[in-house]
Amino acid sequence: MVEFSMVRTIERTRRGEPLGAEAVRALVAGITQGTIPDYQTAAWLMAVLWRGLTPDDLTTLTIAMARSGATLDLSSIGHPIADKHSTGGVGDKATLVVAPIVAACGVPVAKMSGRGLGHTGGTVDKLESIPGFNPELTVATFTDVLRRCDLVIAGQSADLAPADGILYALRDVTGTVPSIPLIASSIMAKKLAIGADAILLDVKVGRGAFMETMADATALAETMVRIGTDAGKRTAAVISDMDRPLGRAVGNALEVIEAVETLRGGGPDDLRSLALHEAALLLVMTGKAVDEAAGARMAERAIASGAAFERFAAVVGAQGGDRRALEETARLPHAPIVQSVPAPESGFIAEIEPLAIGRAAMRLGAGRARKGDTIDPAVGIVLRATVGERVERGAPLFDIHARDATQAATVRADALAGYRFSAEPAIVPPLIKTTIPASIC
Amino acid sequence: MVEFSMVRTIERTRRGEPLGAEAVRALVAGITQGTIPDYQTAAWLMAVLWRGLTPDDLTTLTIAMARSGATLDLSSIGHPIADKHSTGGVGDKATLVVAPIVAACGVPVAKMSGRGLGHTGGTVDKLESIPGFNPELTVATFTDVLRRCDLVIAGQSADLAPADGILYALRDVTGTVPSIPLIASSIMAKKLAIGADAILLDVKVGRGAFMETMADATALAETMVRIGTDAGKRTAAVISDMDRPLGRAVGNALEVIEAVETLRGGGPDDLRSLALHEAALLLVMTGKAVDEAAGARMAERAIASGAAFERFAAVVGAQGGDRRALEETARLPHAPIVQSVPAPESGFIAEIEPLAIGRAAMRLGAGRARKGDTIDPAVGIVLRATVGERVERGAPLFDIHARDATQAATVRADALAGYRFSAEPAIVPPLIKTTIPASIC
Repeated sequence: MVEFSMVRTIERTRRGEPLGAEAVRALVAGITQGTIPDYQTAAWLMAVLWRGLTPDDLTTLTIAMARSGATLDLSSIGHPIADKHSTGGVGDKATLVVAPIVAACGVPVAKMSGRGLGHTGGTVDKLESIPGFNPELTVATFTDVLRRCDLVIAGQSADLAPADGILYALRDVTGTVPSIPLIASSIMAKKLAIGADAILLDVKVGRGAFMETMADATALAETMVRIGTDAGKRTAAVISDMDRPLGRAVGNALEVIEAVETLRGGGPDDLRSLALHEAALLLVMTGKAVDEAAGARMAERAIASGAAFERFAAVVGAQGGDRRALEETARLPHAPIVQSVPAPESGFIAEIEPLAIGRAAMRLGAGRARKGDTIDPAVGIVLRATVGERVERGAPLFDIHARDATQAATVRADALAGYRFSAEPAIVPPLIKTTIPASIC
Repeated sequence: MVEFSMVRTIERTRRGEPLGAEAVRALVAGITQGTIPDYQTAAWLMAVLWRGLTPDDLTTLTIAMARSGATLDLSSIGHPIADKHSTGGVGDKATLVVAPIVAACGVPVAKMSGRGLGHTGGTVDKLESIPGFNPELTVATFTDVLRRCDLVIAGQSADLAPADGILYALRDVTGTVPSIPLIASSIMAKKLAIGADAILLDVKVGRGAFMETMADATALAETMVRIGTDAGKRTAAVISDMDRPLGRAVGNALEVIEAVETLRGGGPDDLRSLALHEAALLLVMTGKAVDEAAGARMAERAIASGAAFERFAAVVGAQGGDRRALEETARLPHAPIVQSVPAPESGFIAEIEPLAIGRAAMRLGAGRARKGDTIDPAVGIVLRATVGERVERGAPLFDIHARDATQAATVRADALAGYRFSAEPAIVPPLIKTTIPASIC
């Protein structure tokens, strides 16, 4: 065994040479234990942004990060367990729909989710708009809820993959965030630490997503699928459109309402079809369905029978939430002011810039501009018509749910600026761009 | 004025975008004052290694580094002052020859030199082999010696360009040493802080040099010439061969002896011609000679008249050294053992790998393996025949000057391994590869 040298590791990385499993493990151990100084780690991160890592080194890195702290042992559940992750976008509440459907089909879903930073909250922020809902679970409670409901959705434990926390904090202040291998390993380390058997990744692409181009989104999706597969997990990815908001509701309680509508057989078409596709994939990946068509039929039946909604209500209740709020949405927080904004012209909606809507919702209080900001669960924006639809001048275009009229007025013009109208019917780009299936390993 | 953001500066650097003078100056100020954390500087250094810097930003950086601490004001000397720097190689004692020649021609030469790390000592280490010689001068003494002798050769002051010291230490531990703009700015910042008007750079190229290829050597030379010129200094560069040792002596006192021989009209051809070329360039750059041919004639006269040697003896005396040691070399430290190594075969010497000789000398004690190692001024290797010359089997090939016979025996085979012999006369590559002349700015 050669003694580990961080300088040599940095040099090899910046020359694009493989590091080898031993060096990568020593690197992660040194970062976690604080024996490698931050300045060396920072130089290494920039070298990775420049040169990338070999597939083997990246998998080793991710597994070592996953094992750098506590890991969950879900083997006592006795079934293949599913996990689902989205890279995030405006109005993305798909996890709230997919997870209950899959659970209702008999596949346990264990989900840990970070809090959102940016336009709207994360999955956990959305659930916290339900009175009483508690995402901060101990490991014992996490496993218990999972066993009772086949479903659990918790906030991310701080001692999960601590190496990732250290690396992420350093990337944030050293201009090394947009590295596809580093993004992939950060996401996958947390997935591997939770220990689900089947991992479905939804990589958003477009102006409202972190990955703006198909090339970047594909690279990220393929990298994560390869890491997961190499780590022995069934892993697949969907690349889906984020050039428009997903669904119609943007804002925490508003998105819970839309998720519930979808679980009860309604909801917007795009959200519904994405959720069915993702649920079907997870059912195939866990061996519950023979193929995607069969999986989609199972998922549709879970909605139609009310089992999916029932599963959602059960988990909300098990985690301390008021499940009546899911049936009587008046029990959810609601904004004092709902201001309807009329269409400024007649025509087809050719475009709704997702960030224009997302940032307007954030300014209303639905998202965090800075870490630690408090979220207002009630506020947000609800689209009354979406891309591809025709509107008449003066007809309602979107509603602003705000704390007061002044606040509503400040975001109105910016949200409107995200719209583009056309005289001709607009071509609506497909929601699901591509699917990278799980390979058998 | 926009507030300085280090993260934005790192991001712009890694995207290859210009930073602007204000940001670069804020960066150097933050590094010098310690307000920018090392991890951000380290990430920035790796981004520079990756993307480089624009010429304007690099000049601004170098000037800001030069001004980050004390600078010398040599304006009271009242003449254009010359400085000469070599990137270093095996047997490179040219500065000890060039500086006295130029001074003897009436051009003051102010030289500060770092200590050597590696095969042999730096210029200051070589001079310290002269009994009593003191390179640690105060600013007042530095200027005084320069005024009295038109020449001063001192060790580098620690408060000269402190930003360079900080950056160099960080580069050393973050794998970011081999960046041409960073190497260029490190060298030039110290030159600019000394404040000479004409700067001649000798960039060594080959297996015994830091720059192994002509492409790298040319890029470094051109980058330094551009920085110097943009900073308002007459700056030129010579690219010279380091695929063989320069001259025949490798080792501190041994090199002083060879330099003295050259100053007195003898010495090896390669050292003599390189020194004359460089002296001539400096005489042209300072307006002392109308062209290089005239400069070369002046330089030759300075040797023939004894003025150059006299100038060297004067400065050695002015800096506390025993000038008699230059005439009676028995007064210099000498090794107890001189072991002659015979040629193992007859033929033409086709190659002498400079690092084979340099490392052998270092192991004898002539150089430093680690910072802070003590140098043995007496030991080293003297070539009895060099590249292109014919030797007969058994004739003396080189002499090992060592502390004892055991030490001599340990380096003998390694030094011999650097030789390649050929039956045919070998083509000796030109010593001076190219000259990048000073442009008028």
